[in-house]
This record gives sequence, structure tokens and C-alpha cells, in this order.
Amino acid sequence: MTVTHPRGFRASGVAAGLKASGNADVALVVNDGPDYTAAAVFTGNRVKAAPVLWSQQVLKGGIVRAVVLNSGGANACTGSQGFRDTHATAEHTAAVLRGISKPGAKPMMIGAGDVAVCSTGLIGELLPMDKLLPGVNAAAKALAADGGPKAADAIMTTDTVAKNAVAQRDGWSVGGIAKGAGMLAPALATMLVVITTDASADNEVLDAALRAATRVTFDRIDADGCMSTNDTVLLLASGASNRQPTVEELTEAVTEVCHDLAQQLIADAEGATKHIAIEVRGAASESDAVQVGRVVAGNNLVKTAFFGNDPNWGRILAAVGTTSAAFEPDRIDVAINGVWICKGGAAAEDRSKVDLSGRDVTVTINLREGEMGATIWTTDLSHAYVHENSAYSS
Amino acid sequence: MTVTHPRGFRASGVAAGLKASGNADVALVVNDGPDYTAAAVFTGNRVKAAPVLWSQQVLKGGIVRAVVLNSGGANACTGSQGFRDTHATAEHTAAVLRGISKPGAKPMMIGAGDVAVCSTGLIGELLPMDKLLPGVNAAAKALAADGGPKAADAIMTTDTVAKNAVAQRDGWSVGGIAKGAGMLAPALATMLVVITTDASADNEVLDAALRAATRVTFDRIDADGCMSTNDTVLLLASGASNRQPTVEELTEAVTEVCHDLAQQLIADAEGATKHIAIEVRGAASESDAVQVGRVVAGNNLVKTAFFGNDPNWGRILAAVGTTSAAFEPDRIDVAINGVWICKGGAAAEDRSKVDLSGRDVTVTINLREGEMGATIWTTDLSHAYVHENSAYSS
Repeated sequence: MTVTHPRGFRASGVAAGLKASGNADVALVVNDGPDYTAAAVFTGNRVKAAPVLWSQQVLKGGIVRAVVLNSGGANACTGSQGFRDTHATAEHTAAVLRGISKPGAKPMMIGAGDVAVCSTGLIGELLPMDKLLPGVNAAAKALAADGGPKAADAIMTTDTVAKNAVAQRDGWSVGGIAKGAGMLAPALATMLVVITTDASADNEVLDAALRAATRVTFDRIDADGCMSTNDTVLLLASGASNRQPTVEELTEAVTEVCHDLAQQLIADAEGATKHIAIEVRGAASESDAVQVGRVVAGNNLVKTAFFGNDPNWGRILAAVGTTSAAFEPDRIDVAINGVWICKGGAAAEDRSKVDLSGRDVTVTINLREGEMGATIWTTDLSHAYVHENSAYSS
Repeated sequence: MTVTHPRGFRASGVAAGLKASGNADVALVVNDGPDYTAAAVFTGNRVKAAPVLWSQQVLKGGIVRAVVLNSGGANACTGSQGFRDTHATAEHTAAVLRGISKPGAKPMMIGAGDVAVCSTGLIGELLPMDKLLPGVNAAAKALAADGGPKAADAIMTTDTVAKNAVAQRDGWSVGGIAKGAGMLAPALATMLVVITTDASADNEVLDAALRAATRVTFDRIDADGCMSTNDTVLLLASGASNRQPTVEELTEAVTEVCHDLAQQLIADAEGATKHIAIEVRGAASESDAVQVGRVVAGNNLVKTAFFGNDPNWGRILAAVGTTSAAFEPDRIDVAINGVWICKGGAAAEDRSKVDLSGRDVTVTINLREGEMGATIWTTDLSHAYVHENSAYSS
């Protein structure tokens, strides 16, 4: 149920001492082919971490043979030394992998330019290369065809559970791992995600499938409105299944994995006590629906109300009012968990009918302007969020 | 030091039973002339409360003889009945004031169209008119030339202190009252503000002075990024001083009062433990500086870091990276309380040198792109903010 479920991949996760806790912090995912096509989506943040700048260059070549990931440090806002460190990490990874071939296989033909790098952790500090590079050695030695879960463990930061997913199709599959927890925001929720498939697909097909999938999954979750410097979603194809799905088939399977991982990210977001779906209906356009959903999802007064089990639809309308979406204030309907407490922009069913005792909350907003819709997933704003983000530097 | 400091104004505040606490909740500010010119700025929220829709119409006439304000209910998202209630409140206020003349003065010539209405409190519920209208009677009877502080008391919601301010000039003055506390956001912080002056000024001069003043004061504070449905800033001129300052002189004095009140609002924002100035320098344009300041001020990870006394400049850079302002990531400098912990987009002085033990925090961001700047004032995101906005419906 992870990145090593599709054939042609090995993975590992080891503890290299980057995390003070001693937990695993260096992961490797290796594509053993026969194909090495890849696609990626990166953070929209203009302040990009060194590994993002590096991996963007790697992806231009269209080939990714390995991904090295570390937690315990974001290597963002680290200047030219930070970029040199990322480059050195890729060089070292390639060199180690050239020396360690798969049992019974030919030595890997791999250069630094085939190695994507992902980092996550505190911004603004250089990585301890004296720990990271030996960690890469250990991770390379630990590579295994069932190593996906260990890689998922090693990229966790404030995540409380590892995230793995798989979509099985007839003769081929898509698998994935993710880390998230904080800094989850629109235009790529903050996270590192590696998705693998044993389907055979060229770069254009992979790119189309990945962009279509992330647009309706990772781009529609928002935990705290804060966009990270390190967001990366990688899709690697090994072709080991000898199957070549259509772009529609591949998109559908990649979307299934992305949706699964995105929901796991929201479910495990820092301090969350609620898992909230903001369903916008009746919008004049999909972009209107997405805008309204994101603004409501990002509103601190709405989020604190849900933490307090308060079906405060007035705050929801006040948030909708700050958007540029087509709507008339006196036509909007709002339901919370199926109870239409606001009709035509004013109070309707009694708020006491709304049951907010459970973890899952669905807010339905009908703009009554058209036929389009979108759903944004978010969390509440709790004491635990404030605690996690104030008590520790991260 | 309040709205009744300028000559020609009376004010009052009484308890009408709108607040469960029994505290004062209805206020009146009356302009006794000889002039009745006025200007106003209203919320940019497209979901506007009934009193905002009403007062916008009143201001089109250019004359405001009285302002009736209530806490204990926002009268927002209340449909056509809510608007009828606001209209009835203005009619009732005018009728009562016609019957109660100033001692020794002629009866007031006042109609409902001369009465601005402001409301604040929970969204989505109708006001208890059977309590509000008798409250207006009591407030009219209580009108006094030193009643400003009582009016300031009566408009408080989660405010912990009343807000009053004055700017004294040679022979004339400007005074003001304000309420704020939650829902403080750009494009008019959420609040009700009444400003008075005994200067003589036509509507155009008042409008120019008020817009110039609010642009650099109330528009540059942001407590929680949430824009209200009820924001109103009114400026009333009585002309009782017989002085006619230039538009520059009036703008300067109105700005002084607005700045004073805006700082009081931020100082008393819900749950705030820090009073934070985000000073943006070196911007290519003022709008770039304002955008960067607002985005940093609104970032939950930055706000929780300050609550935790953590000089987390990485989160500040990550926030700057989400703007469209002109900047290069590797040229930005950031200081916290005067310590330049980030230079050229990377770590510089040791973060341990930053003293965050006090309440006041200054973040200086130098984009090094030009000569423009702006300062946005904000607060931290604390446990108390979450508590105030989750434990009670507001």
C-alpha cells in the first residue's frame, strides 16, 4: 500500500541523526526501470528551498532514477551554501547507488542530474552534511522492494502517522507516500509526496495526469493557509508492468492516490480536532467555487467556531462576502451537516439541530448562481494548533 | 478625550438589555450644529449588515444629525426584516430627538434620513426591538455634553477597555470613539468608529480627510484577517468652532485620532499577547509594501511563533514568498526588534540575540527593491484568541 507496491521500485528509511529524537530522517526511493520517466509539481511560493530549485532542474531532464528525502531540516533560506549542499547530496546519492547494484542486476547508470532531492523541517538552517551523507549510505544499503513504509516513516515531521496509499488496476498500479501536518495551504498544500507507478508512460502523459490529479486533491486542502517553501509532489514511472494505460486511466489512478494521501494529510493536520469539507455548489464557475471554499476554509473565526462546536453560519457568510465570486448576499443558502441553518442569506432552521459532536463536518454553501461546484477540505483552529506552532520552532 | 470634546456634540450610553451581561449597549451621538456635514467609510465586505446598507443611504444625503449605535447584535444576515428594523430604529431615534431639545435650544429638525445606524454583535439574529427602542428613549434622555465616554462604553463587545481619542488644535479639535477586538482585518479593520470635529468643513473636505486617514490607520491593522459585515467609520462636523482648517490640517488631525484609535484596537485585540509592527522598507511601491506587510501580519505560523517568543524569520520569508511584490529571495533582509537575523535571504545574526520578552515587537523587512515603505500593525495568535472565538458564539 505504498511506493514499493508498483513493480520496479525499492525504498528505504533510516535514522541519520538529523532529528534530535533519533527517529528515522533519511529516505530513498529508487526506480529500477526499465523506464525512468517522471513529472513533478512544486510549491508556488517564490521563496523556494534549495532542494526545490535543484529538483526543478532535474525534472527538466525528464529522468528521475532516485529521490533522496530528509526530514529534520528544510534547507530553505540557506543561500548558496544550501544549494551546494543539495547538489552534494544528489552527487553523493548517485555515487553510492552506482556502487550498490540491485542483486543480480547491472550496476546503475545514474548521475546527480537523475536524483531529485526533498527536504522538510526548520527553515533557515544549514543541514548537518556530516550526518546526512552517511545517512544516504545507510539508506542505500537498506533499499528493499518492500521498503516503502520505512521511507514514509522517515519523512515525518510533526505528522503523527505515516501516510501511504495505493491504487491497484488490472496489471498495473500507482502507489504513494506523503508527509504533511503543518503549513498546509492552497496552491499546493505543504508536503512532500512521492508517487510511483509501474505503468509505462511518457513525460507528457505523466505531467498531464499529475497536474490534473493535484488540482483537485492537494490544491484543495488547506490546514492553516500557510504555503511552504518546500512543497514537492513527484511522480515516477518504471514501466515494469509493461502496461500503457491511457492518460485518462492514469489520471484516474493517480487522482485516487492523491485524494487518499490528501485526506490523510488533513486528518493528521497539526492540532486538528475536526475534518471539515467545505462543499460549494451553485457557483457560476469552478474557480468561483474554489475561491469561496478556500476563503471559508482559511477564515480563523470560522475555524475557531468549529473547534468550539458552534454552527456559526454568520461567520461563514462574512467570509463569503470577502470573495469576488458571483453571488447575491440574500440568495445564499448554508447547511452544516445537512441542516439548512441559513436560507436566502438569513437564519432558517434552528442552529440547535446541528450536531457537531463528531469529527467530520460538512459545510454546504449554495451560491444559487449556476451549476458549478468544488469541495475544499480543511481543519478547525484549536488550542493544539497554537501550542504546536508556538512551543517549538519548526 | 472623546467625541464630546469638540464643541457642538452630545452623547450618551445606556443599558437596554440587549447584552445578557446587563452592561450598556445603546449609544447616541448627536450633532447640535450649526453644521451637519459628514463623511463615512464602510466595510468592503459584500455581505453588508442592514445598518451599513441604511447608513450608506443616509450618507448620500450628506447630512448626519445623529448616530445611534448598539452592541449585543450585528443585525447582519437578517433579511428584509433586519433592514426594516434598522429603518424603524432611525425613525424612532429621529422622533425621540425631535421631542427632546437641547436645554434652551429650538426643537431639533431631524428625520430618519439624518440618522446613521451602527450595530455590532452576533451575525444572523434579529435585534430585540422591544428592548432597543426603549433604549433609544433612555439614551436620548441621557444625552450630555460630556457623554462621550458613556457612548464608548456602550459599544464595547469583547473589548476589555473603552477606546477614546482626541486631537486638539488651535481653536478646534477632533475627537473619536471606537470598538474593535475581533474580526479586525485589512480593507477596514472590523469596528465601529465615530469621529467628531467642531471644525467647519464641507462634505468633500471631510470625505478626503477621512479616506486619507483611514487608508494609513484602520486599513493597516489586522488582528485575525477576518473582515466584518458591519465596519463603519463616521466623521461628523459641527462647525461650532467657527474655524475652517485646510484639508491638509483636517486630514492631519483626523489621522492622529484614527491612528490613536487603531493602536488602541490592536492593543486590545482578542487574545493578543503581542503588539506587532510589520515595517516593510525598500519596496518598489507603497502597494507592494502594504501587500507584504498584510500577508506577513496574516500568517498563522508567524503569529503563533511570536506567541511562543520564537524569532522564526523563516516563516516570515515563507510568507513574503506568497506575495506578488517585487523582490528577489536572496536579497531580503529581516530584523526582529532591531536584530538582523536574516541578511540576503539567509541566516545572519544569532537568533538568541532577539529579545521577545516584551509585549511590543517590531519586524523590519527590507525588500531592497526601492524606496517605498509601509507599516502594518497586528497581534500574535494565542490560546486566548482560540478560546474567545470558540467558547462563545460571537
